Amino acid sequence: MNIEKAAPGNFYAVGVGPGSPDLLTIRALRLIESADIIVAPRSELSKESLAVKSVEPYLSNQEVVEHVYPMSRDQEGTNECWREIAERVNGWCGEGKSVVQITIGDPSVYSTSSYLLFALTEMMEEERIHVVPGITAFQAAAARFHECLSLQDDRMVLLPAGNMDAVADALDNHETVIIYKAGKHLAKLRELLSQKGLLEQARLACYVEQEGKERLWKNFGEVDLDEAGYMATVLVRTGWRKWSEK
Amino acid sequence: MNIEKAAPGNFYAVGVGPGSPDLLTIRALRLIESADIIVAPRSELSKESLAVKSVEPYLSNQEVVEHVYPMSRDQEGTNECWREIAERVNGWCGEGKSVVQITIGDPSVYSTSSYLLFALTEMMEEERIHVVPGITAFQAAAARFHECLSLQDDRMVLLPAGNMDAVADALDNHETVIIYKAGKHLAKLRELLSQKGLLEQARLACYVEQEGKERLWKNFGEVDLDEAGYMATVLVRTGWRKWSEK
Repeated sequence: MNIEKAAPGNFYAVGVGPGSPDLLTIRALRLIESADIIVAPRSELSKESLAVKSVEPYLSNQEVVEHVYPMSRDQEGTNECWREIAERVNGWCGEGKSVVQITIGDPSVYSTSSYLLFALTEMMEEERIHVVPGITAFQAAAARFHECLSLQDDRMVLLPAGNMDAVADALDNHETVIIYKAGKHLAKLRELLSQKGLLEQARLACYVEQEGKERLWKNFGEVDLDEAGYMATVLVRTGWRKWSEK
Repeated sequence: MNIEKAAPGNFYAVGVGPGSPDLLTIRALRLIESADIIVAPRSELSKESLAVKSVEPYLSNQEVVEHVYPMSRDQEGTNECWREIAERVNGWCGEGKSVVQITIGDPSVYSTSSYLLFALTEMMEEERIHVVPGITAFQAAAARFHECLSLQDDRMVLLPAGNMDAVADALDNHETVIIYKAGKHLAKLRELLSQKGLLEQARLACYVEQEGKERLWKNFGEVDLDEAGYMATVLVRTGWRKWSEK
């Protein structure tokens, strides 16, 4: 399974982790170093691609193509935007080039890679499409807090902050709840966590493992909302489900 | 955040990923290469430590200490066993040595690292304890299947297979269900997935990313239970929760 380098005519969706260049896997590093073309997604709201920043030390002669995608919750527009870049990727691979799409975190977990993979699967043989996992923000956050996310018979759930009813349900039914895309919902989350008596067991990580930007709060009750950032992950440990409680 | 090497008197719980040596992060690699002592957990039922095998290409002069732990669901015995090794780690760090515990997957996700960290936190200053995330088996499995685990408003849950009622609940309430420690429960899982009409949406990965041992089934309905292995992860995609369904 050791992959030494990107093969001609092949596409790789590669997770680059949360931001720090040393949290790439060795496989990701080798693919990025050897790729002809690197596709880097950038949201229309960002000035620079965080994924490019994470791999900057490893760039030399690769052609870097930024792909700007919309941030609106518009299914049709999103599909269209990714179909377009999928066609370009398919074209490059047809010319015998190796193409790597870099993506923050892991390509299978709330990642724009999924849209590109959906579109590309319609165009290319599966054997020429590859996915390389990456460290997610919640894993990086757990590591920074020395937090145990799951052990023994624990159940761990991951969901976005947008729907507060779903978050409340999750808190009632799981030992660990990981809340993504929390940046815009921190005030509401604090209210909910306070109601449930869980503020002290909730941790907040903003821009985890991003040089110079990381902010960590071990106790959500002490968070200063003005200092918290947009890229925010919340970890809540509601309890333990040990072997004996089966 | 770039960590160049293991510092004297410091302890690092390091995830080494699912098994393939190129799925270590660069940070894990540097720490392992520079550590004085490497603690490698091995279950009493295994002949060799899978974690050691995953880092074999990177071993030279480090002292490798295997730590055998019980596989029984015995809380007291487990605590005692890890308190013992924590005391040794604390001793080594006190002598100015750098110590890395390697662990398969991620130290925060169903990992023996948690026991060692619980015990060590009682003995050592937190500043000298570090955790480095690693790729989990479920991420590696999703990558091999080109599976999207979560997107948009999806909820994803991870739990062990032991309690089939909890698994059934999880299948009813989440778009993605990841079932760990499934090896001994595959027949029961097949029954449950069949009842819920989810066999075709369930995938099974055994020994994912372990050289020469990996077995993948994209459709759980086609699994030959005699060929499936003990280290088994099941991914079930029950549906999608798109933006519009808020």
